[in-house]
Amino acid sequence: MAQKIPTRLYLSEDEIPKYWYNLRADMKEKPDPILHPGTLRPASAADLEAVFCKEPVAQELDETTRLIKIPDGLLDFYKAYRPAPLIRAYFLEKALGTPAEIYYKHEGTNTSGSHKLNSAAAQAYYAKEEGLDSLTTETGAGQWGTAMAMACAFYGLDLTVYMVKISSEQKPYRKALIETYGANLIPSPSNTTEAGRKILERDPNTNGSLGCAISEAVERAVKTDKCRYVLGSVLNHVLLHQSIIGQEAKAALDKYNIKPDIIIGCAGGGSNLGGLIAPFMAEKLAGTSHTRFIAVEPASCPSFTRGRYAYDFGDTAKTTPLLRMYTLGNGFIPSANHAGGLRYHGMNPILSKLYRDGLLEARTAVQTDVFDAAVRFAKIEGILPAPESSHAIKIAIDEALECKRTGEKKTILFGLTGTGYFDMTAYMSYNAKTMGDYIPTDEDLARGFASLPDIPQNKSR
Amino acid sequence: MAQKIPTRLYLSEDEIPKYWYNLRADMKEKPDPILHPGTLRPASAADLEAVFCKEPVAQELDETTRLIKIPDGLLDFYKAYRPAPLIRAYFLEKALGTPAEIYYKHEGTNTSGSHKLNSAAAQAYYAKEEGLDSLTTETGAGQWGTAMAMACAFYGLDLTVYMVKISSEQKPYRKALIETYGANLIPSPSNTTEAGRKILERDPNTNGSLGCAISEAVERAVKTDKCRYVLGSVLNHVLLHQSIIGQEAKAALDKYNIKPDIIIGCAGGGSNLGGLIAPFMAEKLAGTSHTRFIAVEPASCPSFTRGRYAYDFGDTAKTTPLLRMYTLGNGFIPSANHAGGLRYHGMNPILSKLYRDGLLEARTAVQTDVFDAAVRFAKIEGILPAPESSHAIKIAIDEALECKRTGEKKTILFGLTGTGYFDMTAYMSYNAKTMGDYIPTDEDLARGFASLPDIPQNKSR
Repeated sequence: MAQKIPTRLYLSEDEIPKYWYNLRADMKEKPDPILHPGTLRPASAADLEAVFCKEPVAQELDETTRLIKIPDGLLDFYKAYRPAPLIRAYFLEKALGTPAEIYYKHEGTNTSGSHKLNSAAAQAYYAKEEGLDSLTTETGAGQWGTAMAMACAFYGLDLTVYMVKISSEQKPYRKALIETYGANLIPSPSNTTEAGRKILERDPNTNGSLGCAISEAVERAVKTDKCRYVLGSVLNHVLLHQSIIGQEAKAALDKYNIKPDIIIGCAGGGSNLGGLIAPFMAEKLAGTSHTRFIAVEPASCPSFTRGRYAYDFGDTAKTTPLLRMYTLGNGFIPSANHAGGLRYHGMNPILSKLYRDGLLEARTAVQTDVFDAAVRFAKIEGILPAPESSHAIKIAIDEALECKRTGEKKTILFGLTGTGYFDMTAYMSYNAKTMGDYIPTDEDLARGFASLPDIPQNKSR
Repeated sequence: MAQKIPTRLYLSEDEIPKYWYNLRADMKEKPDPILHPGTLRPASAADLEAVFCKEPVAQELDETTRLIKIPDGLLDFYKAYRPAPLIRAYFLEKALGTPAEIYYKHEGTNTSGSHKLNSAAAQAYYAKEEGLDSLTTETGAGQWGTAMAMACAFYGLDLTVYMVKISSEQKPYRKALIETYGANLIPSPSNTTEAGRKILERDPNTNGSLGCAISEAVERAVKTDKCRYVLGSVLNHVLLHQSIIGQEAKAALDKYNIKPDIIIGCAGGGSNLGGLIAPFMAEKLAGTSHTRFIAVEPASCPSFTRGRYAYDFGDTAKTTPLLRMYTLGNGFIPSANHAGGLRYHGMNPILSKLYRDGLLEARTAVQTDVFDAAVRFAKIEGILPAPESSHAIKIAIDEALECKRTGEKKTILFGLTGTGYFDMTAYMSYNAKTMGDYIPTDEDLARGFASLPDIPQNKSR
């Protein structure tokens, strides 16, 4: 490694991956199958196609194809904002005085402000190819809704976004951005669906939740002609699309013969983390590397660290297929005090399986510690990070300081999933020192677990 | 040109320019000198150093050195966000059905959201090298204030930003961003300066103006120990720093042997336009190219197209040195209705001279046309542009459509100076169709011209 490593490790346009990498193909122990909620038997493609687009369903169920081709019409769109920069954090290393080498993959240089666009574009592309007219989805913090609005504007599809009510109120500019791209934005719960009306009857002043917004979006998709529902995290095909993050990062690192010792990603539903670690985990599964993988979740929504490995619904109305995953229960209500995303009750099944099998670690961070790290990073590295990404920054700094203590020269890679430009309310609350931390009590968790489906599959375990 | 041109024309880190290009060195007819406002004689370095940092003053007065070295300690910072992408607008070309080739230099991928960081970093670097403790500046739309806050956080300097009052109210998130980077932000006019207090006495409910914020920032700098004032546009050293935009663009185009027929930039004080066109104008001055250069200004603040070529102050309190430039008069009050920047009464002296000599064209665009172009561009190219940049987009689209009409395959390059993520209020007003256009009447202009200094130099012309 005599070669001087640049601040930004470039890939050329020709080096954008042409294939997604399907991690499941290399897992000897596969995640448990998705279940149909009525029959409790493995869901078929036909079952899933009632809700989702055809090609993503095929990808969702594909456990064997290692590399799946990225269609040319999608690759063209990727070229408009990829490859995403891989950055050597020289300034941060110096400020920390650590012997560690720190790298981060910066997915926030596109207008959606995050990695979400990678799967949004893929799902919009497939919907258009399938001949659909419109899509529905939900958004919490707003990154996914923006990404879908951009993708649908580009591919010429109508889009309805159910945005968690409190988010649409706290983030008027995020709402405006989604609307500027032409999407129909509805604060959730709303009276446009049965699921929404039921929740409003029970609690007219509810802040809404991601689980509830999902219920509304799914209901609308199922009841509308030539319309399907799209989801931005949790599902396996979303992780597949996000594997482009890890593949690009690995391609750039391989050029300089750099092998990360630790890879760190924030984890809400798991799409960024799963995409970032995929090709590196392949080497670990093959026994050719000893990389450690760390998922960082908010202490306020600790799916891995305090959740149960069980079959659960993706939504609060209990209409989706059942996924076996680490979950706090579909009825778990995250604190409204928590800024940003990462508030989903469950975690992607592939990652859940890897965690279960000891291949992936998990840690939590409280909100004010996360923002301490965010502001420190912003001043040193010049990029204002998203609150979500800042969870990874917090743990990357901790690991780098541990290297300082021990004198070890480890190589750390973390995912900078996005920028915080639409999260200024949270930064204002941090600056004003009115930001609080919230850790659910055991009673809070018990209420969430009580919502887990009462099925044989959850009893034997 | 058999070579396929990529969507993004990459430069490597090694290809970041090591020198700024000083356009004046190649101008046979130089701009008129800066005058001391008291003596009305050419200002000396000592005169200017009372307000500005030393090295930028030397650059301001240097008419002969063609290439000026970018210091290594600054180049390191540039490497954290440069080279900025040069993008082939394949999607826009297709959507317009034009035979023209369209390229844009995207300066908005850093957190400040614009090209302003190029000069902010340079000025903060020199201030630190000079041993100063703090800097003052003003900001209108907020891009410059953010850039300076980032640069001062990085180089370890205190910063006070006077933000035009109406801007600080309309853009609370921009204000929060500047404060997150640690700057002391004061809405202007304020009672922290004599200039501010005088204006507040006359008009307690004033919205403020850039000219007034400049007066306050200059006053504070002059009265504070180890403190100087920095400006983000209009001055020649700022254009010098921004020449990195044009040099990178030219280096990328040269790789593919591409010669632009038309180069388009938005123009407020002129820093982006001057930086973008500099190395291309060198070829025109040398007689080796026939490129057309188009400045686009808002119809609401038409310095080039309806201004006078005269000596004027940079601020409303009439305290700065006098610049010979196209100006609407330091007392010109731009419409509060106008979104974004480009509201400054004057225009950089180099650009003013080029315009005067017929080497540069100028056009205006009204606000709703600009936002039509902005939203069209956002949906097609996937980037939400800043309102400022969208002036260039509007005219680039017009020129591309003219090529469609005539069948000419021209090559168009425009500057995408930044992103609109902190301009959502303007987009909301556009989406809601409440955005208006404003064109000053001749009486409005006459009131501005009445504020021009009554000096012999302004009479003989």
